[in-house]
Amino acid sequence: MDKLLSEVLERIKPSPEEKEWELSIAESVKSKLRKIIPRNVELEIVGSVAKNTDLRNDRDVDLFMLFPKDTSKKELVSKGLRYAKRAVSPNPWRIGYAEHPYLKAEIEGCTVEIVPSFKILNINERASAVDRSPLHKRYILSRFDERKCDEVRLLKKFLKRFGVYGAELKVEGFSGYLCELLIVCYGSFTELLKNASNWRSPAIDIERYHTEKGMREKFKAPLIVIDPVDRNRNVAAAVSAISLSKFILASRAFLRRPSKGFFFADETEFSRKELAKKMRGRGTKFVAVVFPTPKVVPDILWPQLKKAAVSIVRHLELAEFKLFGYDYWSDEDKRCVILLELSTHTLPAVRKAVGPAIIYEKDVGSFIRKHKNAIGGPHVEGDKVVAVEQRKVTDALELVKKMTKKPASYAIPSHISKSMKRAYLLVDEDILNENFDEFLNSYLSTKEFFIDNLI
Amino acid sequence: MDKLLSEVLERIKPSPEEKEWELSIAESVKSKLRKIIPRNVELEIVGSVAKNTDLRNDRDVDLFMLFPKDTSKKELVSKGLRYAKRAVSPNPWRIGYAEHPYLKAEIEGCTVEIVPSFKILNINERASAVDRSPLHKRYILSRFDERKCDEVRLLKKFLKRFGVYGAELKVEGFSGYLCELLIVCYGSFTELLKNASNWRSPAIDIERYHTEKGMREKFKAPLIVIDPVDRNRNVAAAVSAISLSKFILASRAFLRRPSKGFFFADETEFSRKELAKKMRGRGTKFVAVVFPTPKVVPDILWPQLKKAAVSIVRHLELAEFKLFGYDYWSDEDKRCVILLELSTHTLPAVRKAVGPAIIYEKDVGSFIRKHKNAIGGPHVEGDKVVAVEQRKVTDALELVKKMTKKPASYAIPSHISKSMKRAYLLVDEDILNENFDEFLNSYLSTKEFFIDNLI
Repeated sequence: MDKLLSEVLERIKPSPEEKEWELSIAESVKSKLRKIIPRNVELEIVGSVAKNTDLRNDRDVDLFMLFPKDTSKKELVSKGLRYAKRAVSPNPWRIGYAEHPYLKAEIEGCTVEIVPSFKILNINERASAVDRSPLHKRYILSRFDERKCDEVRLLKKFLKRFGVYGAELKVEGFSGYLCELLIVCYGSFTELLKNASNWRSPAIDIERYHTEKGMREKFKAPLIVIDPVDRNRNVAAAVSAISLSKFILASRAFLRRPSKGFFFADETEFSRKELAKKMRGRGTKFVAVVFPTPKVVPDILWPQLKKAAVSIVRHLELAEFKLFGYDYWSDEDKRCVILLELSTHTLPAVRKAVGPAIIYEKDVGSFIRKHKNAIGGPHVEGDKVVAVEQRKVTDALELVKKMTKKPASYAIPSHISKSMKRAYLLVDEDILNENFDEFLNSYLSTKEFFIDNLI
Repeated sequence: MDKLLSEVLERIKPSPEEKEWELSIAESVKSKLRKIIPRNVELEIVGSVAKNTDLRNDRDVDLFMLFPKDTSKKELVSKGLRYAKRAVSPNPWRIGYAEHPYLKAEIEGCTVEIVPSFKILNINERASAVDRSPLHKRYILSRFDERKCDEVRLLKKFLKRFGVYGAELKVEGFSGYLCELLIVCYGSFTELLKNASNWRSPAIDIERYHTEKGMREKFKAPLIVIDPVDRNRNVAAAVSAISLSKFILASRAFLRRPSKGFFFADETEFSRKELAKKMRGRGTKFVAVVFPTPKVVPDILWPQLKKAAVSIVRHLELAEFKLFGYDYWSDEDKRCVILLELSTHTLPAVRKAVGPAIIYEKDVGSFIRKHKNAIGGPHVEGDKVVAVEQRKVTDALELVKKMTKKPASYAIPSHISKSMKRAYLLVDEDILNENFDEFLNSYLSTKEFFIDNLI
């Protein structure tokens, strides 16, 4: 095991040259900024580079501008961005949005994020969400040596392999800071995995701020990890049940038969022809709703896309169609797709309306009045009155079309709603002509790579 | 109302001539028997003729041979039948079966049932189920005058109109004696209907043998009516929830707008062409399982037929097909039919197998082992492991065929099981070529005739 992990580390740890190069870029931006900003604004490199927990080829530096606490939020943002733009020019940059805007510059192939924030020494002074980062950095640095940094790197790479690294709403997985805290808690990658293998509703509170019961009542989430610098925050709030489940299962699988496959993927090849064969073989009905990506940041796009898919599925099921599965995808730029796989996509012309129990005289009267021209009945079944009536929608495709035309009436979120009006539908193998191959393949080839280890 | 009911009575009450004729036949059989049987066996006319609650054209007389209590059951049956055969000869007769055999003779167009039983004065002496009948007769006669007899006649005819008169298992409705007790309890037909309109879990104990609570605990049935001559018996045990519901609804409907339609039906005409159109219009799949009627009495045939239909439906639903409805029918002689109407009769080639929650390590291992060659997965969904596997049966017809070939493996009751092996299947309009028109029409035209009264 040790040999395996050190071989992996050799491939994932940034080389001294990469490190030096990254820091030199950060330092050059920093010194340019230093000349621009007032004396009372401090500069600090934070994030995984500063904590020495970054992966090879990440090429991503976070530089914080720490303004005095008495600065107004408006001033912080406007001044901060102005300074940042001047400092990175003439390199290309764009504005990113978290709780407030920040600047994202591309400098010699390295992404430098310059984030204006307030300088705080204690969490109670916190005025914006990003203010915690320097405190996180100090907490981790005070507890980490070189070995622990490497354990974090192993964990990050491991999580990436099955798609649960990152707290963004697209992933709903483990943030970098969460990885660091898990290593603080368990000491090493393998020790963490041994524990995670047996996790049932895990709740971790390194600084013992809460009672077990109090913690579980306050934080309702599949995984609870209390932030050592902020007792009121669950660092793992973004981790979904499915991400946690995958981590537990992968931990078990890795410990049974450790291999490099848990860190590095073979390129899997698949052809459109194979996908077509797979789709045909299932005998289900595939419907893809394709529409332009609304112009919103990913952390708004993905949850809205998810909610839209769930709404469509729910309305199909309400109309008594049966879903085999569904998924959604976007290139975050031009196109979004909601993929529906139906086991029942056509229904008979009639449906059975089940009315009230016959003892409820008034309700029975209303039901009979409503169904007096029913195709069959009203008649008695068991202790209820029922009627056979015409079904409104017998074809799922028709209903999906209807939903794309009036998305707002079907609880589709605002941004998706607007662009869904320009949606078009693709059915079965026609879906293959639109370059969603990778997405389709991930939907059809769901077997987790580590699953055979669990036998 | 009074005018309406007396007009109905005029049409349903046996004429004095019919009465006289029936009694003369009964008396002639009785006097023939009297010459044959020993002195210690008594003869008694019981049933609706004796209680004067019979309907016009019933032509049905019950004659009891009352043997001394010290007779053995075997002797009672063998001697009883021997005497009866001799007495009715040369008229045609056959053996009927209740708890024990009895003789059913056709004499001048009148059915005479000669039933051997034990003579008892008190219910505690009872040795066979039929022994109660003379006690019932005495109880009713002691409480009835001519008017009450007529009220019973109205009730019987009313119940017949919507098919809930008779305690036999084919009907699961109201026996003649139950009708009489309901009139004893409520005094008149309309008074009964007024009460029944508002019934919720009715429980009637005329002789107040039980506490309300004790009665409900002892007898679990939609309708409870304690037998005044046997406190341990619910006279209404045969009444199903649906029969009771129909009675309640019809009572309400009649009181709102009384009419002769509640006693006499118009002949409804329908053509095979209309039935075909109705079937097509529903867009469902009709499958009829046709097989020879097993040689058993109706009270065994009907519950077995019902159980067989329910079993087939249950197995179809287990295989994820969707039933719109079902029904069963027999001419009690040559053919039985189980009619299935499916809203989903074909399914995709795949199904989703949902496995255990991932926290159950051992179960997860077994599930993965079992599905290691699955078409999709095993993978994680929510907190569970699932797999996409080949579906065993994708066509409902195929499964029905399989069931008819091995009925015993699908919990089809014994007698049906044997003859179902000779079953053949009919689909959709082909069903119309086999003279089940009346049955099909009753399945498709379910609207209760009185339903519009309830608006």
